[in-house]
Amino acid sequence: MNITLSQAEKVIEAAKKKAAAMDTKMDICVVDTGANLTAFARMDGAWLGSVDISIKKAKTAVFFTMDTDQLSPLVQPGAPLYNIEHSNQGLITFPGGVVLKNAEGTIVGAIGVSGSTVEDDHKVAQAGAEAM
Amino acid sequence: MNITLSQAEKVIEAAKKKAAAMDTKMDICVVDTGANLTAFARMDGAWLGSVDISIKKAKTAVFFTMDTDQLSPLVQPGAPLYNIEHSNQGLITFPGGVVLKNAEGTIVGAIGVSGSTVEDDHKVAQAGAEAM
Amino acid sequence: MNITLSQAEKVIEAAKKKAAAMDTKMDICVVDTGANLTAFARMDGAWLGSVDISIKKAKTAVFFTMDTDQLSPLVQPGAPLYNIEHSNQGLITFPGGVVLKNAEGTIVGAIGVSGSTVEDDHKVAQAGAEAM
Amino acid sequence: MNITLSQAEKVIEAAKKKAAAMDTKMDICVVDTGANLTAFARMDGAWLGSVDISIKKAKTAVFFTMDTDQLSPLVQPGAPLYNIEHSNQGLITFPGGVVLKNAEGTIVGAIGVSGSTVEDDHKVAQAGAEAM
Repeated sequence: MNITLSQAEKVIEAAKKKAAAMDTKMDICVVDTGANLTAFARMDGAWLGSVDISIKKAKTAVFFTMDTDQLSPLVQPGAPLYNIEHSNQGLITFPGGVVLKNAEGTIVGAIGVSGSTVEDDHKVAQAGAEAM
Repeated sequence: MNITLSQAEKVIEAAKKKAAAMDTKMDICVVDTGANLTAFARMDGAWLGSVDISIKKAKTAVFFTMDTDQLSPLVQPGAPLYNIEHSNQGLITFPGGVVLKNAEGTIVGAIGVSGSTVEDDHKVAQAGAEAM
Repeated sequence: MNITLSQAEKVIEAAKKKAAAMDTKMDICVVDTGANLTAFARMDGAWLGSVDISIKKAKTAVFFTMDTDQLSPLVQPGAPLYNIEHSNQGLITFPGGVVLKNAEGTIVGAIGVSGSTVEDDHKVAQAGAEAM
Repeated sequence: MNITLSQAEKVIEAAKKKAAAMDTKMDICVVDTGANLTAFARMDGAWLGSVDISIKKAKTAVFFTMDTDQLSPLVQPGAPLYNIEHSNQGLITFPGGVVLKNAEGTIVGAIGVSGSTVEDDHKVAQAGAEAM
């Protein structure tokens, strides 16, 4: 089971709509279960630096089959996964990466969002995930 | 002058339609005039290896403000730009990268397409470019 | 709107003058709105390691349309953007990167300065920015 | 003996003047004897892809203390240095990189120029070198 482009486009549309409603400009990325880029959109005026961050958030979520906000406490100094970001050519371990599940609850990919506060990023990613 | 997300989405839609009509599966990328990712779509079943190739084709076209098929003869052994691909963290210099121009003829970005023969890739990229 | 080479040269001249007045030796970089290198100067005897740092400071400022000193508190352990530096092939998130604005207040690029304390780096970058 | 920033700036000014006289737009880079960036200028409208190429040309010239056009025949298929470009995080081995010598004939750095044909690039680099 893997996300289709049609599903990824719906996820991005929902995320764009939520971002606009929150008056934010986001970079939005969807990857499949192989952590490969499926779809991407940069809203006009969104940060250039968030292109790569949104992609890395989505990849990180698929790499470990969990939302990136679950990783944040585990990567701090002294915590078990301290500096895990050095693997996989760079991870992003703060909020904004959310796994995408199909109707049966199976993970079929992930969405990564970057462009505002991490709280906003996470909300927009969740709005995208709920469009599945 | 820079491409908008709305324009980039129209370019990708036109490219997807052309690719489907040709019975091919393509990775399609649009970058802006700064060679930064603006939009991307991987058609279901399209090659994973073409994600990066489509991005590099689009970037290469913007880097040198020309379609990538114009570079192909110049980069062969013995030709003036032999092994230019080692620059810019990797270029792709075969067909499939096409500059995008606005109504005034100004370059506002580029499309990169990969997933079939380079002839097919170029045709699909051109179909995308014509949607501007 | 994008910075011109003539403007970038004025920015670098002002930064060099300030650095000399402070008896420091700086690496000074200017990038455009696409985070692409526009101009660079390494003062005689300035640290070699600051070549890349000055470039990354300027790119980081453009990537997120803010001075790098605004990022510093956000990237500490436990803070929201902890380890963001692993994105974009390396960011620098301490002071010394300052956005450049035109007369209308639009961001047209950024200056990055490295070679002394971060306080000195920031002062020199600001002197460059004021030359716009 | 190493190039000074003041000398590097004169080299770049001469190269810019020559490029303008030839109606070309160039990316121009000067490195020192350690192959470290000393000065750089991208003329308005010059190719973005030539930022990295001009830097790699200058570095390549210093790496092997010879102009890059001397390397071109040696890197072809079947020639002794075939695919040397894979070293040093990427070399550029076509014309446009020229060593810079002081009055005594000692190499003090190199200039790299990119933005037009390799013949034009080499001419502009030579004009820069003659300003020493």
